[in-house]
Amino acid sequence: MFSTVAVNGEVKRWEDLRLHDFAQGFFFGAGFFTTFRIEDGSPLFLSRHLRRLAASLAAHTDTVRAPSPQLLEPASVRDTLRHCLAADPLLGPRFHGIGKLSASDGHLLLTLRPHAPDAERLQHEGRAILAVEHGAYRHAETSPNHKGLSYFRQFSRMQQLPVLANELAHACELPTANLFVLLDGALVTPPLDAPCLPGVIRAVLLDSGSIDGVPIVEQSLPLARLAEARACVFTNAAVLATGVPSLLGHALPESLSLAARLREHILAMASRED
Amino acid sequence: MFSTVAVNGEVKRWEDLRLHDFAQGFFFGAGFFTTFRIEDGSPLFLSRHLRRLAASLAAHTDTVRAPSPQLLEPASVRDTLRHCLAADPLLGPRFHGIGKLSASDGHLLLTLRPHAPDAERLQHEGRAILAVEHGAYRHAETSPNHKGLSYFRQFSRMQQLPVLANELAHACELPTANLFVLLDGALVTPPLDAPCLPGVIRAVLLDSGSIDGVPIVEQSLPLARLAEARACVFTNAAVLATGVPSLLGHALPESLSLAARLREHILAMASRED
Repeated sequence: MFSTVAVNGEVKRWEDLRLHDFAQGFFFGAGFFTTFRIEDGSPLFLSRHLRRLAASLAAHTDTVRAPSPQLLEPASVRDTLRHCLAADPLLGPRFHGIGKLSASDGHLLLTLRPHAPDAERLQHEGRAILAVEHGAYRHAETSPNHKGLSYFRQFSRMQQLPVLANELAHACELPTANLFVLLDGALVTPPLDAPCLPGVIRAVLLDSGSIDGVPIVEQSLPLARLAEARACVFTNAAVLATGVPSLLGHALPESLSLAARLREHILAMASRED
Repeated sequence: MFSTVAVNGEVKRWEDLRLHDFAQGFFFGAGFFTTFRIEDGSPLFLSRHLRRLAASLAAHTDTVRAPSPQLLEPASVRDTLRHCLAADPLLGPRFHGIGKLSASDGHLLLTLRPHAPDAERLQHEGRAILAVEHGAYRHAETSPNHKGLSYFRQFSRMQQLPVLANELAHACELPTANLFVLLDGALVTPPLDAPCLPGVIRAVLLDSGSIDGVPIVEQSLPLARLAEARACVFTNAAVLATGVPSLLGHALPESLSLAARLREHILAMASRED
């Protein structure tokens, strides 16, 4: 993570931030965050990220003190980002990497980091999925619909990267990524009440409706049907789309080209949105 | 919360702590904590609290950087507490209140606060339980066995205080408290795989085996059987035992005297342990 950060629009040094200002976030995980890709100094799909963050805050007004609404305006975050990039020669106005907005205790914290060391390799080689965590979620529970600072369940499963399934034996998502499979001629992703995170890239793909004539749809995804998938990718805001060349022991060589095509598609969509 | 705190045994001002030193705790809820009662400057059941905290850290070495083991020795925490109490005239060596140890990022943070404003009233009047959250937990899931900084699920339900139940329609616990009911002539609390937190007061009561000839046992507790309970209390380290004069619409007037008797019993046990 870079030392240049911002709190409530003000550029600061990470080392100077006080735990005091983020106490409820620390002690109780009472806060939300969102992570977005920055290309050439510009955040991708920033408005969507901010709408989701604001929606999570609006759904938890009793328990999380939200930053002032103006701070969550895209223009305000763009300004803040610009100031951060200008302030730090390690960043600069053409920065490529990852931004993160964390909201707790009435504060909005912007932090920046380079792409993960394996981001490039993930694009080329994809990532196998080897395991299922059965009953990780309960159908229709709402907490996975919010990206909260109480993130340990996801965080502790990031290395293993299992498919998180619900008690109905339906696939829900991966830790920190949404799941898509090519099934019956459609690109299928589980519905929000599976449950899963309303991921920004997931929403971008669903909104686009189709890719190369293949419909992109929300649909319950029984684990038993994963064996019939022709391809599989997972999406998140950092890598956009990652191919799954092997899904629970089934080789899916088409996944890598599908992921590459989706990344292209997503970047084209990004160029038409703020 | 008092301004006098300690990090890794060193007395500090809360306002001077850096978010930097607790980053994984803040961003990912990657850490654990325990909260204990302090009577006359002495922490109750400190060794048990530290054993549970150490066990949670030992079960998550991949994902949470633990403080050095010496810091989790009872003698070390007692020393640190003594230094904090001596350093702050608002505390003093005879302090009554609540201590909290939070472990993340290789650091152990001790914070102190007065008893909650309603603690006294809870002892006299108890607290009604009005609701059940069905399917809040999955039978045998392990995360509720650890008191983690990813505490938002509990934190956001503290006001409503529902019985958290699993998918088998068994009662598990309350947010931040263990549940006991007087049923078939025994004082019954759900087993750890319900799941529930291995609460320190819960363990103290189970270890004691019985109270006034009534056995204290772990046993699965179907929600349907709560209507047959003759009394109900909940336990935690802050208030020890709180009577439930009304459980899901059933008046249980004996709960208050049972809670008072349990507090007496727990304090007697405390005087025999370090």
